[in-house]
Amino acid sequence: MTIKVAINGYGTIGKRVADAVKPQVDMEVAGVVKRTPTYEARMAVDKGFKFYAADAKYLPDFEAAGIPVAGTAMDLFAEADIVVDCTPKAQGYFEKYKELGVKAMFQGGEKHTMTDLSFNAFTNYDDNLGKDYTRVVSCNTTGLCRTLYPLKKFGIDNVIAVMIRRSADPGDSKRGPINAIEPVLKVPSHHGPDVKTVWEGLNIQTTAVKVPSTIMHMHSNIVTFKGQATSEDVIDAWCKTPRVKLFNAAEGIKSTAEIMEYARDAGQTRSDLFPIAVWEDGAHVVDGKLYYYQAIHQESDVIPDNVDAIRALCNAESDKWKSIEMTDRAMGIFQKEAVYGD
Amino acid sequence: MTIKVAINGYGTIGKRVADAVKPQVDMEVAGVVKRTPTYEARMAVDKGFKFYAADAKYLPDFEAAGIPVAGTAMDLFAEADIVVDCTPKAQGYFEKYKELGVKAMFQGGEKHTMTDLSFNAFTNYDDNLGKDYTRVVSCNTTGLCRTLYPLKKFGIDNVIAVMIRRSADPGDSKRGPINAIEPVLKVPSHHGPDVKTVWEGLNIQTTAVKVPSTIMHMHSNIVTFKGQATSEDVIDAWCKTPRVKLFNAAEGIKSTAEIMEYARDAGQTRSDLFPIAVWEDGAHVVDGKLYYYQAIHQESDVIPDNVDAIRALCNAESDKWKSIEMTDRAMGIFQKEAVYGD
Amino acid sequence: MTIKVAINGYGTIGKRVADAVKPQVDMEVAGVVKRTPTYEARMAVDKGFKFYAADAKYLPDFEAAGIPVAGTAMDLFAEADIVVDCTPKAQGYFEKYKELGVKAMFQGGEKHTMTDLSFNAFTNYDDNLGKDYTRVVSCNTTGLCRTLYPLKKFGIDNVIAVMIRRSADPGDSKRGPINAIEPVLKVPSHHGPDVKTVWEGLNIQTTAVKVPSTIMHMHSNIVTFKGQATSEDVIDAWCKTPRVKLFNAAEGIKSTAEIMEYARDAGQTRSDLFPIAVWEDGAHVVDGKLYYYQAIHQESDVIPDNVDAIRALCNAESDKWKSIEMTDRAMGIFQKEAVYGD
Amino acid sequence: MTIKVAINGYGTIGKRVADAVKPQVDMEVAGVVKRTPTYEARMAVDKGFKFYAADAKYLPDFEAAGIPVAGTAMDLFAEADIVVDCTPKAQGYFEKYKELGVKAMFQGGEKHTMTDLSFNAFTNYDDNLGKDYTRVVSCNTTGLCRTLYPLKKFGIDNVIAVMIRRSADPGDSKRGPINAIEPVLKVPSHHGPDVKTVWEGLNIQTTAVKVPSTIMHMHSNIVTFKGQATSEDVIDAWCKTPRVKLFNAAEGIKSTAEIMEYARDAGQTRSDLFPIAVWEDGAHVVDGKLYYYQAIHQESDVIPDNVDAIRALCNAESDKWKSIEMTDRAMGIFQKEAVYGD
Repeated sequence: MTIKVAINGYGTIGKRVADAVKPQVDMEVAGVVKRTPTYEARMAVDKGFKFYAADAKYLPDFEAAGIPVAGTAMDLFAEADIVVDCTPKAQGYFEKYKELGVKAMFQGGEKHTMTDLSFNAFTNYDDNLGKDYTRVVSCNTTGLCRTLYPLKKFGIDNVIAVMIRRSADPGDSKRGPINAIEPVLKVPSHHGPDVKTVWEGLNIQTTAVKVPSTIMHMHSNIVTFKGQATSEDVIDAWCKTPRVKLFNAAEGIKSTAEIMEYARDAGQTRSDLFPIAVWEDGAHVVDGKLYYYQAIHQESDVIPDNVDAIRALCNAESDKWKSIEMTDRAMGIFQKEAVYGD
Repeated sequence: MTIKVAINGYGTIGKRVADAVKPQVDMEVAGVVKRTPTYEARMAVDKGFKFYAADAKYLPDFEAAGIPVAGTAMDLFAEADIVVDCTPKAQGYFEKYKELGVKAMFQGGEKHTMTDLSFNAFTNYDDNLGKDYTRVVSCNTTGLCRTLYPLKKFGIDNVIAVMIRRSADPGDSKRGPINAIEPVLKVPSHHGPDVKTVWEGLNIQTTAVKVPSTIMHMHSNIVTFKGQATSEDVIDAWCKTPRVKLFNAAEGIKSTAEIMEYARDAGQTRSDLFPIAVWEDGAHVVDGKLYYYQAIHQESDVIPDNVDAIRALCNAESDKWKSIEMTDRAMGIFQKEAVYGD
Repeated sequence: MTIKVAINGYGTIGKRVADAVKPQVDMEVAGVVKRTPTYEARMAVDKGFKFYAADAKYLPDFEAAGIPVAGTAMDLFAEADIVVDCTPKAQGYFEKYKELGVKAMFQGGEKHTMTDLSFNAFTNYDDNLGKDYTRVVSCNTTGLCRTLYPLKKFGIDNVIAVMIRRSADPGDSKRGPINAIEPVLKVPSHHGPDVKTVWEGLNIQTTAVKVPSTIMHMHSNIVTFKGQATSEDVIDAWCKTPRVKLFNAAEGIKSTAEIMEYARDAGQTRSDLFPIAVWEDGAHVVDGKLYYYQAIHQESDVIPDNVDAIRALCNAESDKWKSIEMTDRAMGIFQKEAVYGD
Repeated sequence: MTIKVAINGYGTIGKRVADAVKPQVDMEVAGVVKRTPTYEARMAVDKGFKFYAADAKYLPDFEAAGIPVAGTAMDLFAEADIVVDCTPKAQGYFEKYKELGVKAMFQGGEKHTMTDLSFNAFTNYDDNLGKDYTRVVSCNTTGLCRTLYPLKKFGIDNVIAVMIRRSADPGDSKRGPINAIEPVLKVPSHHGPDVKTVWEGLNIQTTAVKVPSTIMHMHSNIVTFKGQATSEDVIDAWCKTPRVKLFNAAEGIKSTAEIMEYARDAGQTRSDLFPIAVWEDGAHVVDGKLYYYQAIHQESDVIPDNVDAIRALCNAESDKWKSIEMTDRAMGIFQKEAVYGD
């Protein structure tokens, strides 16, 4: 049986989920929903996705713009197996999904308390099997889970992560700042607790600042180990981890600029970088503490987890590593040196 | 006969020329040359291009980095039909190309006086037929030729172009400024005379400023017509012009940020935008003068012209429009609403 | 008689007008008005300005913040000779000023049609003598008037100005874009007509783009002369013009960054640069056209004109050059090489 | 006796040291040295400083620029009691100072090993009394000492500091990046060891990233206390600390942009902010750890320490708090709520 996936919201995340679901063997894009007839709506249609207006009241706008519409959101949700909600109005939609009895998953901008269940493919896939609703954790939380999970075996005593966050996405021309650094004054920041929604018991504290860049978040992390681990042990563990990619300043990768340039050369659609980028030559264990930097492509790192979450909720694959491998192969991000297993 | 193309320099332009030459039916990439074993060198090999070290003295570096090398630059040039020089040291290489008797073409950073011949596919393809050496004009000059050429029929009295230039490419983490605007104090700037190297007799004056952005150049242009032309006439002319693409603020395209987001969605490798972007709703004829804005993807707009220049120098196609269409189809940028002809 | 000046709105412009009025021999700051108890409100009190809440409903906020308040805006306006309105809600206040019968002047963000009279010290001081309401034109319009007025004697046939605008003020951490260039799609832009509100009959066309910088606007201007003028004539005219300052790249002033650094060294409060900055080595007459760049300190260039406008409306000085000189001496920006006269 | 201070290098630091030394009762600026006749050289002369060319070979340049020169650097050093070296070539000059037998102090860009002595007014003033050579630690190290020193009394177990660094100074139009975040891959970074050059035994680890901003460095710090301390205790300690200033987001100070706007309003020359800025509402003790953000005005925070270092080396004042108070009063940064004593 092919899982019919409805995508509500066709912006930064929604359009990427659509493109990632499309090549999966066990799912299909039943349709995508958008409110306004922007160029993105036009491109969705050009790509062959069935397009639905968020509400009947928007139909005239789409007609005026010459964008063909297959119906309204409710029509789509009624025939879907699951809705991937990528809207900024998830709370309101949640009630409708419940009424329609359709499974649904949300993005990391929503609160954990809305669904009381969150998702990260590495850390708690199993908890999500067959559930009706979940929330895929945010790009930063996903990034932390990706690189910390393979370090579990060394015994993690505690983690301190300072997140240097890009302030706007590249396609956004409104948000600033242009020339300032802005601290997130609630300390420790909400990111630490957010990791715990998918990884109970991890001892992690986080702080965050916003900086005038658009292309990636950066984390400066310090992990204190309970056990013994050398820099080599850590690098080796990451080499074997899917969805984590090592970079070297020695080969010219000095900042997020060069990482994104690599991603453009690598050729994924939209020049996305789905894995978390870690500087191999910036990761060192000193006095039992691992210091490392990772860069997060905020627009795309959660996309493979979205695909896995669909599978988990729909009970389509009970083995998380099989799902992860299936997702990555279909998306063209399978890493042959990685081990798809614990 | 398949034209054997050597690409000297595998950076911003070189790597794109390689990818654009590859799918052309009448040419092939004989090999690419680079000096340092960066991640870009590694990716060239991964993509299957034959890789040559710029000089024998660099061979140990490549060996140390584990990047297989097919020989040195001279080996490659000797067997090529034409070299596309994308290095910052063109003058020195020029002498070597002459010695080897291999045709060669250079990029817009070089002076016209080096080759005494320049190239733009629209304006002077014919002048380049069968010649040994040429220079493909710069991204800004190419951009001006693209949108002005289709306006010739209205009678161009004069053009004023003010170029608001991005200060560094997206993959560059060194160059600034971070928060300043810098004028090019030589006025009028060199861009006007540069256009005249491929379009004799055009009355054009230019000035330029550099701004802290990485993604596109912007031109604010004013064209005074000799004849009559309405805004609609101009838009209609551009609609029919290959390698020019119209955008609308009404569909959410408000700045270069959204244009690049469009390009990412459109799916070309590296999210490139080969055509020149023009705001349809920002182009107006008022009192016999056309005011319009165009945005130039500085890394990629000259690439199709490079392909055409290869064909012109090698006398592989005498009809410029046939070459342009062939290039565009192979690169996946054929526009079905455009007219490939004068 | 000392003119009692009320300042409504104590933000970017308001706080500067207060500091500029204070040292004038013929005026005094009767009080300043603000709505919210920010650090700026606290500093106004620390500086010794009488502080008024915009409305009685805000009084508890100021009390809670421990900021002493002398009364409400209406109390202040009733006893003032003139209100300098620096609020974003001028239209609403305008009615109140009329009711109270107090003279008032507005800033360039307002429409000319509100007052049907605008002000620039150089171009139309006399038209404002004794009037009740006026509008000091915007920073960009003021900048154009300042450098064009001394060129009148050469006969100005027409002016083309392309404005490369900073997108946010330095103290603003919200507005973007971070990495984009945004055209003002209404062409020609509104700036040309705005100049004509204070300089009837000038033939000027303008376009504008916004760029990710905070510190200054830049104009790339082209003036076509009716008569004869050399580069030297033009430079000489500007040397003799108050409120215009020449800079040289040869002395290290390459961009707006160095101009602002100069301003910081020069020691005005807030490191303001009240004069318009013009690159002497970037100004050239070629074929009867003058090409030049000017940079506008958007936060401060209109301040001296605000002071002059107070004098004009209050009929305190009928000779514009006397007012200009008096203002400049008191503000510490008197230029001894300049000629205060036509 | 008045200390005769020579200032070698009149750039970002040198010009500020000159302005800070000038109003001190026990010292005077004997002269300033610069190599190139930039606008800064001209302004030094305009301000009344005696101006010396770095070398006789530069004299013609100054003559050509019309900048009067009192002699060469060696003339100045020979008659000075102490040289404040603010050049990028300190190592070379060091030998000359030794030959001339003049005391000298260097800036934080130099290595501690050059002088084997470093200086911070709070932490090791006494160690510097009467010494011949020292190095005033960098802006970031100074910032850490300022806010950590008053926390000593609570028992500091360890400190983790992540420095989010501005990439270029505001007056710099060359350096980037424009849109990237760059990690300092040597981890832990050199900043921790640098603090220990003036504070032996402090347990501190640091990492750093560079971001595209020009106006301030930001630190996200975590202090683990041995003893008990509440958020209130910490705030209270900082309130009583000179050269530390608390800010509140509640009063509109959300980022470094608003802090610099505050500094402009506060009216110091160049809009400098000599104290370290700490967010009062971003400082919290949670589970025995203090989390806080501080912002460092990289161009000016070390200036008062330079003045104190002059006094310490010249044995002009043996009580550090007396020197600190004297410096701050003369510079106009005396804080009446602060306690000038331990």
